[in-house]
Amino acid sequence: MKHIIIAFCSSIFAFSLGILDCSAQEINHNKMMDSITESTKGEIETQKIAILIYQNVVLQDFAGPIEVFSKARKLTKGKYEIFTVALDTSIIRTENNIIKLKADYTINNMPEANYLIIPGASMPVINTLIENNTFTNFITDWSNKEKTKTVSICTGSYLLANTNALNNKKATTHYFVADDFSKQYSQIELIKNVRFVDEKKFITSSGITSGIDTALYIVGNHSGEKIKQMISRALQYEFHEKEDWPIAPNGMKYRRKTKSTDR
Amino acid sequence: MKHIIIAFCSSIFAFSLGILDCSAQEINHNKMMDSITESTKGEIETQKIAILIYQNVVLQDFAGPIEVFSKARKLTKGKYEIFTVALDTSIIRTENNIIKLKADYTINNMPEANYLIIPGASMPVINTLIENNTFTNFITDWSNKEKTKTVSICTGSYLLANTNALNNKKATTHYFVADDFSKQYSQIELIKNVRFVDEKKFITSSGITSGIDTALYIVGNHSGEKIKQMISRALQYEFHEKEDWPIAPNGMKYRRKTKSTDR
Repeated sequence: MKHIIIAFCSSIFAFSLGILDCSAQEINHNKMMDSITESTKGEIETQKIAILIYQNVVLQDFAGPIEVFSKARKLTKGKYEIFTVALDTSIIRTENNIIKLKADYTINNMPEANYLIIPGASMPVINTLIENNTFTNFITDWSNKEKTKTVSICTGSYLLANTNALNNKKATTHYFVADDFSKQYSQIELIKNVRFVDEKKFITSSGITSGIDTALYIVGNHSGEKIKQMISRALQYEFHEKEDWPIAPNGMKYRRKTKSTDR
Repeated sequence: MKHIIIAFCSSIFAFSLGILDCSAQEINHNKMMDSITESTKGEIETQKIAILIYQNVVLQDFAGPIEVFSKARKLTKGKYEIFTVALDTSIIRTENNIIKLKADYTINNMPEANYLIIPGASMPVINTLIENNTFTNFITDWSNKEKTKTVSICTGSYLLANTNALNNKKATTHYFVADDFSKQYSQIELIKNVRFVDEKKFITSSGITSGIDTALYIVGNHSGEKIKQMISRALQYEFHEKEDWPIAPNGMKYRRKTKSTDR
């Protein structure tokens, strides 16, 4: 767990967080920022990240990735653009009726984007959304686009799997619903004990905080390991790809109503 | 890193997340929920948690704690009430102009609460807020109340320290500003390599994601270790109290403008 930081990186990190405001140092840091931005020039186009939000969405599922992309935006001088998108313009409450949000765009007027992030919710909410054609059609149309990438967090995996986009691919989800997910989507190969699974066009994440790792991984792919590690330190969060999932004993996992038991 | 879960806890966890919707199981889970709620009865009064938000606040700083308290609310049948409070009713954008939020209350009409959570921001934002009398007076008045607790996350520590509430006490903050914090507030004993410091009436957290640990710790204090661990697993997040902070080399830490260098 020991972290070793070279002066160069820490310096950039401080500046990028807007933490440094000492004029003399600022000049040095500007120079360093330029040099790190230069080193990634040509390798990275601006990445536009659309975050799908909806009633009863789990706050941490999208807050983690946004925090990572937001820090990446600052560190790369704006190479990440982040915006929220919803079905309509109404105020959205996160799970358990807490935070009040207003999306930047609706699915009808959203700008082009490179990534769509689909956060999760409790299974009753997910099961209702799956039956909402407008919602499903939006994700289907999005995932059929040629150059876009789609990222699910936690039970957001169901919303993506429901469009058949993950068929014959590997995927992951929250550990607690994993067996149900396997049963529902037998054409998908479920991967356990990981924080995320990358299938190029589709990245699926495990439970809630694994969205932080997924976003760090994405930023690392575009902007390199240095930027990724700087963000990780800024968040005081240790990036990890693997995790020994907790064991959900038989009979205690998520099980959905079936017609035979629904009497 | 191995997690061992007993059937009892996992079951409660699934129900509490609204993940289970199988009728037969639901009855069992209701029973188990009742038994766990019973076991904490008398020990816990409803805890009202006010989250202070402001322009350019860091999203993860308050999203982490809210996620923990939100899950605790569900698990304890409503024993945690969570709401946001701001200086006024205008739309608030989180750091880097991303999420659009609307607070539930202003500082003038907020209900009584047990806890006030003060999230952080970049140092230029913090330094401006410190000079805002309305903001400082609100935190001063709050922390002078007899039975309230105040919790800072990340650089939110400055907003609290600025009211002198932490004088002659131990406190922590984001590792990168720690030396500056020590210098600014020499009457406070800075604690390094921790995720949070509990001084009963005041709890201070280290950088960004440490707010998750602080909230888990608070819930553990009120509702017990079982509930705390269930939330930790639900978030797929490993609670930790200690952390070997990254090393910010001399000359590369946050340093503020001083009159002598501000030429």
